Amino acid sequence: MSITVVGSVALDTVETPAGRNEEGLGGAATYFSLAAVHYAPVNLVGVVGDDFPQEYVDLFERQGINLEGLERAPGRTFRWTGRYHDDVNQRDTLETQLNVFEDFHPKLPGAARKAKYLFLGNIHPSLQLEVLEQVEPTFIALDTMNLWIDIAQEELKQVMARLDAIIINDSEVKQLTGRSNVVKGAREITALGPRIVVVKKGEHGCLLCMEDGFFAAPAFPLDEVLDPTGAGDTFAGGFIGYLAQKDSVDKTTLRQAVIHGSVVASFACEDFGPGPLVTLTRKRIAERYARFKTLVKF
Amino acid sequence: MSITVVGSVALDTVETPAGRNEEGLGGAATYFSLAAVHYAPVNLVGVVGDDFPQEYVDLFERQGINLEGLERAPGRTFRWTGRYHDDVNQRDTLETQLNVFEDFHPKLPGAARKAKYLFLGNIHPSLQLEVLEQVEPTFIALDTMNLWIDIAQEELKQVMARLDAIIINDSEVKQLTGRSNVVKGAREITALGPRIVVVKKGEHGCLLCMEDGFFAAPAFPLDEVLDPTGAGDTFAGGFIGYLAQKDSVDKTTLRQAVIHGSVVASFACEDFGPGPLVTLTRKRIAERYARFKTLVKF
Repeated sequence: MSITVVGSVALDTVETPAGRNEEGLGGAATYFSLAAVHYAPVNLVGVVGDDFPQEYVDLFERQGINLEGLERAPGRTFRWTGRYHDDVNQRDTLETQLNVFEDFHPKLPGAARKAKYLFLGNIHPSLQLEVLEQVEPTFIALDTMNLWIDIAQEELKQVMARLDAIIINDSEVKQLTGRSNVVKGAREITALGPRIVVVKKGEHGCLLCMEDGFFAAPAFPLDEVLDPTGAGDTFAGGFIGYLAQKDSVDKTTLRQAVIHGSVVASFACEDFGPGPLVTLTRKRIAERYARFKTLVKF
Repeated sequence: MSITVVGSVALDTVETPAGRNEEGLGGAATYFSLAAVHYAPVNLVGVVGDDFPQEYVDLFERQGINLEGLERAPGRTFRWTGRYHDDVNQRDTLETQLNVFEDFHPKLPGAARKAKYLFLGNIHPSLQLEVLEQVEPTFIALDTMNLWIDIAQEELKQVMARLDAIIINDSEVKQLTGRSNVVKGAREITALGPRIVVVKKGEHGCLLCMEDGFFAAPAFPLDEVLDPTGAGDTFAGGFIGYLAQKDSVDKTTLRQAVIHGSVVASFACEDFGPGPLVTLTRKRIAERYARFKTLVKF
């Protein structure tokens, strides 16, 4: 089954203790697509400026991502600049330039409308609502961020009421529910709409909250995290990608999907930008999935 | 096989968002013993003052803990006062009164000397060395803290050279190795002596680092953490307790021991003080162990 993702395509400038990557390919929809396409067909809906390098367009196309929904607007592409601390679990955003993203209104062309699985990347909830007016997918998942919880919580809750799944950081669970206990917070979020709450905890893994209980997965132990940018969106790409591939959202498939999300996210952290996702193969995904089995076996 | 634990027995005053517990039974050796005794015979080595309530002595004895090594010294018992934040993963120590602990030198009587499994609770590394001069157990594990890493690192490293296992917080791994990556840090610690490094991550579970790889376990998802005091020592009690019960430290047993540690630690968080460990039964341990299997299954 195919997937549509709506979100940012960006040029990222990233500094980590390991080095600096200037104006590399970035954005939530980028990481999501490059991960998900290993599992199922992906339609990318977003916007770039007229300065967006052709080589990145070619890269998406070589990976088989459908770009019908990737608008080209006059002006500069969305840019994000961030610096990671020595502890790469901490980062500061140095600059965000919305540029062409400022006036973006997602328009879903044919194939993107027909996709059964929809991922609403981290954009303003009012834009996420605009997407939901255009389509009726079988499965809707969403990512969000502290900013929208802060300034657009009402609209966010309107979107949430229509979700199947929300993919959210532990700190955002606390912010949204006021609960310092993530377990309790995640349960409360299911009352707002999504029956599936996926709590991302970075280096600490992931907690999946479903009606009938929890599934907990560690992060894959990495000796070196070169650049964790996009790891959350990559996780979402592997998670939704696997569900779409299996065309199932039963309990077992959801658990396996979390591991697939963790597997691709672990690869994404091993180099700057989304490069590791481009060279990734199904064989290497399967190998690391098997290592996850060993990692948690008792 | 029997276990000897050397560490503090204390009177704890604890404030959490859920309430306050004044001069309750506490201390690392207390939590460890009350957990471990569900698995194997335990000899407690420590010191209390002449103000130590008889009811706590009775409690230890009713639980079957051997108190031959629990010295009674003139003066006041060790006291600790702490306050937890709304987020109970954060706490401040308000007061530490060493009292009789200040002049404590552990002396191991007969049964305590013969135990095959030894847990050196979080005390000054020079005292841990004094213990090692008295015994030659088969398996030695240790807990420590930021203070000793700070002010007694040389002595700590002397102890570490003789360990089989170290049980340590993620923040202590970072402090001891200077590595912000816990995975890399844990590996480096094995070079200092202990072939087994157990990294405790509180609400995020535990990472077991062995020569041939990692085992990762989540924490048991708790809707409410009433009082996490002693959870780390309780974990150690379940971990060493299970190894002693099986009298094995092979790879499979170590993994299962981590889960047993997590199980008993989760119970300990459900009420103030070590009370939940007193009323715990093997049946309830087995039930929660089975729920852990479901929690991580994919």
